[in-house]
Amino acid sequence: MADHKATIESMLTALIEGRKFRSIKDIVVTMTPQDIAAILEELDEETLTLIFRLLPKDMAAETFVEMEPEAQQALIKSFSDDELREVMEELYVDDAVDLIEEMPANVVKRILAQTDHNMRRSINELLQYPENSAGSIMTTEYVSLRPNMTVSEAFMRIRRTAVNKETIYTCYVTEDRKLLGIVTLKDLLLVSDDDTLIRDIMDENVIAVHTLAASEDVARDLAKYDFLALPVLDKDDRMVGIITFDDAIDVLEEEATEDMELMGGMSPSDKTYSRSGPLDLFKHRIPWLLLLMVSATFTGIIITRFENALAAQVVLTAFIPMLMDTGGNSGSQSSVTVIRALSLGELEFSDLPSVIWKEIRTAVLCGVTLSADCFVKIMLVDRMLLGNAGVTIPVAATVCVTMAATVLIAKIIGCALPMCARRLGFDPAVMASPFITTIVDALSLLVFFGVASTLLF
Amino acid sequence: MADHKATIESMLTALIEGRKFRSIKDIVVTMTPQDIAAILEELDEETLTLIFRLLPKDMAAETFVEMEPEAQQALIKSFSDDELREVMEELYVDDAVDLIEEMPANVVKRILAQTDHNMRRSINELLQYPENSAGSIMTTEYVSLRPNMTVSEAFMRIRRTAVNKETIYTCYVTEDRKLLGIVTLKDLLLVSDDDTLIRDIMDENVIAVHTLAASEDVARDLAKYDFLALPVLDKDDRMVGIITFDDAIDVLEEEATEDMELMGGMSPSDKTYSRSGPLDLFKHRIPWLLLLMVSATFTGIIITRFENALAAQVVLTAFIPMLMDTGGNSGSQSSVTVIRALSLGELEFSDLPSVIWKEIRTAVLCGVTLSADCFVKIMLVDRMLLGNAGVTIPVAATVCVTMAATVLIAKIIGCALPMCARRLGFDPAVMASPFITTIVDALSLLVFFGVASTLLF
Repeated sequence: MADHKATIESMLTALIEGRKFRSIKDIVVTMTPQDIAAILEELDEETLTLIFRLLPKDMAAETFVEMEPEAQQALIKSFSDDELREVMEELYVDDAVDLIEEMPANVVKRILAQTDHNMRRSINELLQYPENSAGSIMTTEYVSLRPNMTVSEAFMRIRRTAVNKETIYTCYVTEDRKLLGIVTLKDLLLVSDDDTLIRDIMDENVIAVHTLAASEDVARDLAKYDFLALPVLDKDDRMVGIITFDDAIDVLEEEATEDMELMGGMSPSDKTYSRSGPLDLFKHRIPWLLLLMVSATFTGIIITRFENALAAQVVLTAFIPMLMDTGGNSGSQSSVTVIRALSLGELEFSDLPSVIWKEIRTAVLCGVTLSADCFVKIMLVDRMLLGNAGVTIPVAATVCVTMAATVLIAKIIGCALPMCARRLGFDPAVMASPFITTIVDALSLLVFFGVASTLLF
Repeated sequence: MADHKATIESMLTALIEGRKFRSIKDIVVTMTPQDIAAILEELDEETLTLIFRLLPKDMAAETFVEMEPEAQQALIKSFSDDELREVMEELYVDDAVDLIEEMPANVVKRILAQTDHNMRRSINELLQYPENSAGSIMTTEYVSLRPNMTVSEAFMRIRRTAVNKETIYTCYVTEDRKLLGIVTLKDLLLVSDDDTLIRDIMDENVIAVHTLAASEDVARDLAKYDFLALPVLDKDDRMVGIITFDDAIDVLEEEATEDMELMGGMSPSDKTYSRSGPLDLFKHRIPWLLLLMVSATFTGIIITRFENALAAQVVLTAFIPMLMDTGGNSGSQSSVTVIRALSLGELEFSDLPSVIWKEIRTAVLCGVTLSADCFVKIMLVDRMLLGNAGVTIPVAATVCVTMAATVLIAKIIGCALPMCARRLGFDPAVMASPFITTIVDALSLLVFFGVASTLLF
């Protein structure tokens, strides 16, 4: 049970330190491969190898799959050829492909040498699909049935092949590799007559995807329809594999992380935070910081242009940070909302006019409220409480008018840019807060000085 | 197939307009409930009701579940008591609970009146669990087996009860409502001897969760272990339900959306963007905008304090936006990364020292690179290209030293605040960019004027 997990883990760590191998063996067989992997990864190479050898064969392979590439490489190094072959035999094709993609060339060579002919062919096929395509995350190990099998023949086939299949709960009815329909194991169980033909109970209305479809779209389809797996067809509409719900969940989580990284002004990383060193983090963060620093030249130029106005009314400077932040926040509210809605497939480019109209109305509500409150705040806090005599009513009016205008501009740009990016084939999340902030900063300063010259000079 | 979906949808819309009901019926039976629901929602109430009545009974219920609350309410209004009872009979308990939570009181009363006794009891039980708890998203409809059943008895029981269960692929072995182990349908199929006892093949190492566990944690457990479903126990460790992978996917997607909304400075909303009017958006966005506007008073006060310095060196003002934006961006990079790692369960509060140390090293790398590039940019662009004579080497030095310090401060605050928030029991995402920007703004201005007084005056 979940509650005892932490206890078991600390107990196991103590046993490993005490090298009580028999007890370790008794305990690990009660654990999940994921939890064993998490503990093994923390060990030094020698102990890791030692404990790994204690695992029963099928468990060893499952645990191996769950480990980080560094630990996997250390293990492979310590394996004899026979041991490596045994682990490879237990792997599903898609896990083997993941492994090969992570390992250096010399290790890959050793792995392929210890892989049987059929597996090697499947691996090579899967390796050819572009990254982030449905083909790259599918597995070729599914149950296929023939349309003129009887239900009892189908059960026999499932029983015979089940061990090597990722899922047996959805079976695919094919003829000449064309997908004719699907039958779930539940359907098969509920048929009362064992001689019923598969073609008579299969569901012919199948949702399928193509090998080159974006893995994100496929994952979202699977989530939408609550399917356990989706069949994948090649360009000639022949069935080549399936994508299972567990891989779809991973894709959705990775996509969310990637969107967040882009929203935070970073290039997305394949590595988790714990596995990223400062140099990795630096590489993913510095490009955006540099770009945004350089583009801030524009705000600098604008302020320099109005240097004289600022020198005459130094009090205006005090409001620049507030106006810039409000603009940035308003813009990122709209961009984040729209980026997520685009990711979830809720919005398309054709919705742009209605989105802009909705954002304009929202901006008016936000702008008016903010301006009014800001006016009160300026007069009460800045003028009366802090006794800043430079804060006159015209100054307050300048700030508040600018604020309302900034909110409007920020919300329009914030919703429009991500949608245009999607239209142009970019990831909308690139157009998130940092980028929009820079544009909105420049525009809000222009409005500020424009309003100031009208009201104050 | 996915390719033909758009075609089918437009064809169907044409048929609905032409009121060709027989053809509509032939087409809808080939579609998924999700796709039918999407089309029905666009129709006016009268046509909606008309088309809904064409659906076969089981399909009608599945389609009903997939619709937005507005359309559901319109349908319920048009249902006779008998029709309502028929739909309710086809619903799974967790879907019925979702429905009841969305409907107004008078509709709920009518629904409950047409629901059978057992279902009503289950609904009432589920309604008592707090929002976002495992109990609130579980279903009570799972297959339970007894330990001393034989495999063939188990199959009989599964066949008899399958229709009303959300999943039959994982079965739960219970005695006196205590969970003893699990058996998958695959295990059952692969047993060669039908007289084998369930207790001899069940897996006793079960991962289970409690009714009050956070639904987000449960969803993440399910994703981690690649389970189809997780059993849920009450406080006395009796099994009360299961959580299935499709509900877990929904929870993970909602949590990601919520985190993004918080990161963008909005209070999270239950409604999708398309369903939110400007007033909804306003309500979720204005609190943060107001809070951040008011807190910008501090930056204003700091600038006012140093008004004289700024009046003497107006050129400094031109660099304020760049420094503030760089600080904001650096901070949000760290906070977004850490917030996501916390969400994914990759970091805990105890990792704080190592996280801060990693961020400091990253900040030094970023800060040095940015400062050096910024120095070059200022001398080349601002001084030479734009001919701004006020930009002297001491001024450039002031800006660059401030920039390095700001990056360091921003990254430390950016990683530390979300982790402290988690520790204090808040959602770390609240401590995202907008909040951190405001703090970093104030600190970077203090550094700026501090460095300026040392180097320039």
